[in-house]
Amino acid sequence: MFALCVFGSAISTSTPAADLDAGKAKAMSCAMCHGANGISQMPGAPNLAGQQAIYVEQQLKHFRSGKRSNEIMGVIAKPLTDTEISDLAAWYESIKVSVVER
Amino acid sequence: MFALCVFGSAISTSTPAADLDAGKAKAMSCAMCHGANGISQMPGAPNLAGQQAIYVEQQLKHFRSGKRSNEIMGVIAKPLTDTEISDLAAWYESIKVSVVER
Repeated sequence: MFALCVFGSAISTSTPAADLDAGKAKAMSCAMCHGANGISQMPGAPNLAGQQAIYVEQQLKHFRSGKRSNEIMGVIAKPLTDTEISDLAAWYESIKVSVVER
Repeated sequence: MFALCVFGSAISTSTPAADLDAGKAKAMSCAMCHGANGISQMPGAPNLAGQQAIYVEQQLKHFRSGKRSNEIMGVIAKPLTDTEISDLAAWYESIKVSVVER
């Protein structure tokens, strides 16, 4: 089964570089569920450590717009600005994870 | 800001144990986007390595039902059975990841 993988929305190259420190600070309010280092502390809340910034950004915008629905994330994402979203996404992507070989 | 974290749906304790080998075999058709070891190979496709089984299971069921919309995942999840979903979710959770301290 050949699956054509086109996930990424058009990547605009003009967005200013994200601020990792601001992202880290903002992520403190996410830590209760997603963990201080992005490893989930709550069943049903995904790990975010090392997750692609483009994916996290996309999902936060979907939660903010309602395109993706979740009671908690809909409330949390609503007030986020584009800059805060991009800083959060960059912060989580910056957390390096490695797969432990079996 | 206190965020009440209630993500997990009721965890039924009677479901049969997932089959990791079957999950690994099924995940081969996901590897082009999500990577053979669950580390994404495609912008916009999330890493799944070490992701919580309850979260992966929930999201695959949402894609299958249409509660969560994505052109690719809607097509891919549609034919999946509950058993295949639980095997896939268990497989990805079984991939151990560690956060690389900074």
